[in-house]
Formats: sequence, C-alpha cells, structure tokens
Amino acid sequence: MVKQTLVTDCGSEPGLISIDTAMALLSTSVTPLAVERIPVAQACQRTLASDTFAAVDLPAFSQSAVDGYALRINGSAPAGSRFTLSGEIRAGQVVDRVLQPQHAVRIFTGGKIPPGTTTVARQEIVQRVSSSGIELLAALEPHRDIRDAGEECRKGSLLAQAGQYLNAGAIAALAMAGVSQVAVYRLPRVALLITGDEVSSRGQAADSVDDGKIHDANGPLLSAWFQQHGIACERFYVEDCMDTVAQTLAQLKANYDLVISTGGVSVGDYDFIRAAAKTSGFEQVFWKVDQKPGKPLFFARCIANETVGKDTGSNEQNNCYLLGLPGNPAAVYVTMQVYGKILLNALQGVSHLPQWFPARLQAPIKADKRERLLRMVYTFVNGEIVVSNPGNQQSHMLGNLFQTNCLVRIPADESLSAGMRVFCQITNLFQAY
Amino acid sequence: MVKQTLVTDCGSEPGLISIDTAMALLSTSVTPLAVERIPVAQACQRTLASDTFAAVDLPAFSQSAVDGYALRINGSAPAGSRFTLSGEIRAGQVVDRVLQPQHAVRIFTGGKIPPGTTTVARQEIVQRVSSSGIELLAALEPHRDIRDAGEECRKGSLLAQAGQYLNAGAIAALAMAGVSQVAVYRLPRVALLITGDEVSSRGQAADSVDDGKIHDANGPLLSAWFQQHGIACERFYVEDCMDTVAQTLAQLKANYDLVISTGGVSVGDYDFIRAAAKTSGFEQVFWKVDQKPGKPLFFARCIANETVGKDTGSNEQNNCYLLGLPGNPAAVYVTMQVYGKILLNALQGVSHLPQWFPARLQAPIKADKRERLLRMVYTFVNGEIVVSNPGNQQSHMLGNLFQTNCLVRIPADESLSAGMRVFCQITNLFQAY
Repeated sequence: MVKQTLVTDCGSEPGLISIDTAMALLSTSVTPLAVERIPVAQACQRTLASDTFAAVDLPAFSQSAVDGYALRINGSAPAGSRFTLSGEIRAGQVVDRVLQPQHAVRIFTGGKIPPGTTTVARQEIVQRVSSSGIELLAALEPHRDIRDAGEECRKGSLLAQAGQYLNAGAIAALAMAGVSQVAVYRLPRVALLITGDEVSSRGQAADSVDDGKIHDANGPLLSAWFQQHGIACERFYVEDCMDTVAQTLAQLKANYDLVISTGGVSVGDYDFIRAAAKTSGFEQVFWKVDQKPGKPLFFARCIANETVGKDTGSNEQNNCYLLGLPGNPAAVYVTMQVYGKILLNALQGVSHLPQWFPARLQAPIKADKRERLLRMVYTFVNGEIVVSNPGNQQSHMLGNLFQTNCLVRIPADESLSAGMRVFCQITNLFQAY
Repeated sequence: MVKQTLVTDCGSEPGLISIDTAMALLSTSVTPLAVERIPVAQACQRTLASDTFAAVDLPAFSQSAVDGYALRINGSAPAGSRFTLSGEIRAGQVVDRVLQPQHAVRIFTGGKIPPGTTTVARQEIVQRVSSSGIELLAALEPHRDIRDAGEECRKGSLLAQAGQYLNAGAIAALAMAGVSQVAVYRLPRVALLITGDEVSSRGQAADSVDDGKIHDANGPLLSAWFQQHGIACERFYVEDCMDTVAQTLAQLKANYDLVISTGGVSVGDYDFIRAAAKTSGFEQVFWKVDQKPGKPLFFARCIANETVGKDTGSNEQNNCYLLGLPGNPAAVYVTMQVYGKILLNALQGVSHLPQWFPARLQAPIKADKRERLLRMVYTFVNGEIVVSNPGNQQSHMLGNLFQTNCLVRIPADESLSAGMRVFCQITNLFQAY
C-alpha cells in the first residue's frame, strides 16, 4: 500500500516542500490499520475494508408499492371493472393462496403480493360496491404499483466497495440489504503529546495559572477534533527536556498507532521532537512545509513489519506514525484540518485527498512569500461561494474560530483582487450562515 | 421562544404545506432544552446557551513572537549595534529583573519579555560576538516581534454568543481564553419508535428473516444519524396496533424529549401514529408536506410547562416532541437530513435554518407535481458545484446512498434543463469526490 519511496530529510531548508507535496506524502506513506469484522450497527464513521455484497434480493419479495388492492386480470382493466374481494394482506403478513381470476385482495404498502397477482390498484381509484365486491374508478394497466423482487439489486451483487466511508445512510443501506457484519479498518489508538513548559497541563481556573504560563488550547482542540471523528485519544504532557521527550515517544510508539505532538518542531534550542523521534526509532518523512501557519510541520513513521491492512484475524500491528505539529494553536487547528484528516483517512484505507471547493474572494489579499491557509467565512452571493477574512490570522490567535467556517488556500507571492478564484475546505457545515 | 402560534391540522389535504413552511414551523415550534454548566473539555458538539467572556487577557502577558533576543534600546537599533547578553528566558519561565539599557536576554517564542524590553531581535539577524556579547546583523525597529498582553482580547470581553456551535476550534478558543466551564443546552433524550409489522426488529442474519418481512433499515439509520451528532438514543419496536402504539407513546412522552417514529403516518388502515399521538396528549403542529419523498411527514408536540431554556439549576423539563417519519427508508433518510437537523438545532437554541448551496444540474430533470429532495452527487466543474443523479430515487431504495453526497431540491411542476441552478445540502464532506 505504500506507493511512494520514503523521503527523508525532505523539506529541510532551503527547499521547503509545498502543501500539495506534503498532502501527497502523508497519503502515500501510510499503511492502513488492521481489518476487523464488526456488526453493521457499530460501523458508523468507519470505512469498509472489503467490497461488500447484498445478502438478499432487494426487495426480497414482490410487494405492493401502495395501499390498495392486488388484482388478477388478463391484460388491462377498464374503468368499471369489478372484482370479488376476499381477505387482506398487511405488510409483514404472507398469504400463499393463489389469487383467482377477477379476484382482489386488500393489500397495504410493503405487503407481499399473493401468487397470481397481475397488477395493484391504489385505493384512490377503487370503490367498494358490496361487502365482497370492488369496482375500478379508472382504467388500470398490468403490473402497476408492484415492486418486483430484486429490482434494486440481487443477492450477491456488489453493494459498496472497499474504501467506502460509512455514514448513517450507508449503514441503513447495508442493514436493508441483510448485511449484518462488515470488514472495516480498526480505529487508530491515538496519543496526544503536548510539549512546552509554558503550557499549563490541566484545565485550571483562569486565576490559577502561573505567571508566564498559558492555558492549554492544543490538548482540548485535539481531543475535540478526534471526538468529532468518533475516535477517543489519550493526552500526555511533557516538559521540554530531550530525555523525557525521547522516553515518552518510545513508550507511545509501542502502544499507539498515531502520535500527534504539539510544539518542539521548530529550530529553537528547546525543540526536541525531531531529535527525540530519531532516537526512539522514527524515520522522517518530511519536515517543513511552505505554508503559513504551520511551516515546521513534521511527519515521521516507524514501520515495524509488513502486515498490511489484511484480514489477519488479529488486530496486532506495530507501525506508528508521528505528526509533529507546531505549538501555536492556530497552526495546530489548521494543520489538523488539512493534514490530520488525510492521515486519518489513510489509516482507514482511504487514499483520495479531500476536495477543495471553488470560491471567490470578497476583498483583496496582499501577497505573502508563503502559501497561506486562512480561516475565513463563506457565504453565498449570486450562486457562488464567497469567502471573507475575519482578521486575527496570527498563529497565536484563535478567537476568529467562532466565526470562521472554512479554510482558504492563498497562493504564495501573489496579490489577489476581490472576486478572484480561490479554493476552500468547509470546516463547519452545521452552522453555515 | 415560541415565535409562532401552533398550527393544528396544518397540512391536511388538499392544502399540503411547502417544504419551506415545514422547516420554519419546526424551527419556531420548539422550546430549547434546559441549560447546564459543564467543563469546556466536554462541550464539543454542544451549543452555547449564554454569551461567554474571556477569563484572561489574550495574550495574558507580553511575550516574544519568535526565538531571539529581548533588547533594551532607545528608539531604533542600526545594524552593528551591540548588546550585553545575560541569561535566557524560556517559554513558561519568568524573569522579573529589569532589563538594563543596551542589554539583551536570550528569549524563546512565547517567553514573557522582561520589564524594560523595547524590542525583540529574531535570532536570524543576531550574531554572537563573545560569550556575553551579541551584534545585530540588520537594523531593528522598536517593538518588533512582541505580542502585547491583551492584543487579541481583554479579560471580560465577549468571546462567543449564545447559540454558538462548539466545534473543535471553538473548544480550543474557549480553553485558551481561560474559560473552564460553559453554559450549554443539555442534549435531548431521544427515543426511536420503529413501527411496521413487516420490520424485523433485530439485526438477524439474512436467512433468518421470515417471509414477507424485511430487514430493518430505519433503526440502524436513525441510531447512526444521532451518533454522528454526538447523541445516544434508545430504540423501541412496536406492532401495528392502536393500543400498543398509544401506550408506548405515552410512556416515551414521559421519559424523552424527542421521539422519532417511522411508519404509520399515512392514511392506511394501520397507520396509527397520529391517532395515538392525539390520545397520548400530543398536539399536531403539521401533517403532510408537499414533497417527495416524505409527503406524510408529521410533527406534534406536548408542551408541559413554561420553563423555557433558562438556567434553572435543574435539568427537569417535560416537553416532548414527536417527529413522525414515513416508513420508507429513503423518506427517513431525506427527512432526517432536512428536518431532523432543524429540530435538533432548535432544541439546542439554534433558530437559523441550514444553508443550501447553489449548484448546477448536470442533466435535465423531468417535472413532477411535488417538490423533490433528490439524493445526488456533487462534483466541481469550472469552479461551480455540479450535481448529477445516480438514479434509484424511489422511496424504498437506499443503494444510491453509497454514492450520493448531497440532497438537491427540485421545484415542483417544472422541467429543468441541464445547467439550471438548483440548491443542495451537502451530506458528506468527508468523502467528497
């Protein structure tokens, strides 16, 4: 599954790698997690690891599409045709008695049509003329309002392919087709490694944080981000000390599939993540991306063996991936939206990259030497997505996240005019304005 | 909070109500749930019930924006300026000693600048000239690379307003501003009431479902839908019997805030939901919407008292809402996407309606007498969202949910040509193509 040779020392200055290169490297350097079979009812927000087939015909039997009457007649029935009525078939009931010519059975939506039925008359065109007789108020063609067995799909036919993300609709479609278990990639065991001596490590009240220290935004951000994706994670705080960071990383590597660290990836005297990663057995895939925020982004991996996303009957797998995010919370937010999702997808066997929506700039944006990922607000103007800048884009500021609902890529070295085309990722559909 | 008079018998034929009217009635007929105060770390996917203010200045103290040197000098410093270096300040450390004129302190990003600092020189423009001396390689202006205390926001200033949805970014912004607890609307207690004698009530294997019965798609669909929204729910299966349905509804009304039923809302002889709702104390808000699928959609409520979304210190609240969905699974899927979200939002104090994205039709669509909500596939062509129809739109079919990623509104009584403008709701961002 690893489609690209590992690139070590990739991104070291002066040759920063581009956002596109970093996205592609993330997607192609990751081996999907092991496969497990679980009940469909527990598979929401998971990804299929194998093609999945219908266990029954859909519909499973020929049935009425309406509340009405199952009829048996040769050819079409003109208005005024009369039928002898006997019995009824509710949904869920079965009547095996063969319907006789010119006879009718009361039937309800989803009810299995009895043998001999040639057409169904919806109740709106039927009049009762006696306790056991009905009359058609309109002409009726053969084979009306019958859902034929297997008309949507046949037992054994392909329902969904490996790589299919299972949202609520997909879960329902699997359940309806009689699929009770599915093969999915197991969820990653995720550790968050929060570095920085300035970070107050627990959710203290405002007045209990020591002078010079800051409230931790990164831990809550990452925990919430994984929660949104249906994944639990554990959080570890470490001091800025080479030995401690290295020991912690070595332990995490043995027990987790994915480590997300914050801070310690720049070139400061106390930036230990890269060195500690090397010491504890990770190999660098890339470091430093030509972007703002998040330039020092670091990605490394430790490939323990070659058991690759196969249904081995075991969940054991000893690869570990380390995504080293910068410490500034805006960089953490932006890099998780862009790269965290790709990494999570890749671990779940999804290799295609997320789509960027075309949009137009509401106002001009000045050139910057690096490509930017701006937190912006989308609205709709004349049928197009228009994005505007709420300001406060510095990497230590998060306040604009209450307004923003998308991330916009702004190319490097270009002054952009109002109305120009840019591309965005939607970050908040639930509360679009 | 109830902005509109209750409309009873609304939607009874021949005057079906429009989709827009139904959406508005849902949004305005609901009283938000009670308010509770919870830790910020547990508030992801919740909605703020009160305006929320910063507990600290942001930044809390003036700090270096870079790895470099804090300097004290009168005015600008020309290239070649020399300073006496003494000590260092790591992020998280505090040095209260006043910086003397022409002196420098090594400082790292986020480190609190010492008293007396006039500017910060990033390390790239500084050269060590002795063990205790540094020299600037470039001219430096006053007050460079200093993040001033309170420059993003002041302690006590408004951070976020009531009604704010809390995604991962918002959680981080609250945490960073020292907010440890927030007032949010409590989550609804949700019951799913699955009716239909044809529905097999447990996830049996394909071959263990009796003839004439079908695998339940609606229960798994609704459970997964609520799971995606961070809400647990309980599922109840009832037979198509008036007394049983009425007794069950009465019990659910006493113990849940929201009941979602499937089936039994049409005009068939065994459609008991409306009558049972009335018997058990619900009053109808609307029934029947001019749409396909989902025409018999039913909404009722039971308002027990007038305690309305206030912070009463208690979670007790005895209102109950009943959204009666049709039994066809495609109708369940579509109506939850459109109306379920609005209802959930309204219970969480969010009154604005979801945004519909403009899109263009890839191919013509024939007229239908009712407005349609089609499951379609969006892609991008020349910077616009283009939607195409995967087929199999009948309300008993779900297979196209593996492909579709949006719902498109197709107006009634109009033949639409390729390229015409329509509006869609995105249902799957995670796996957009």
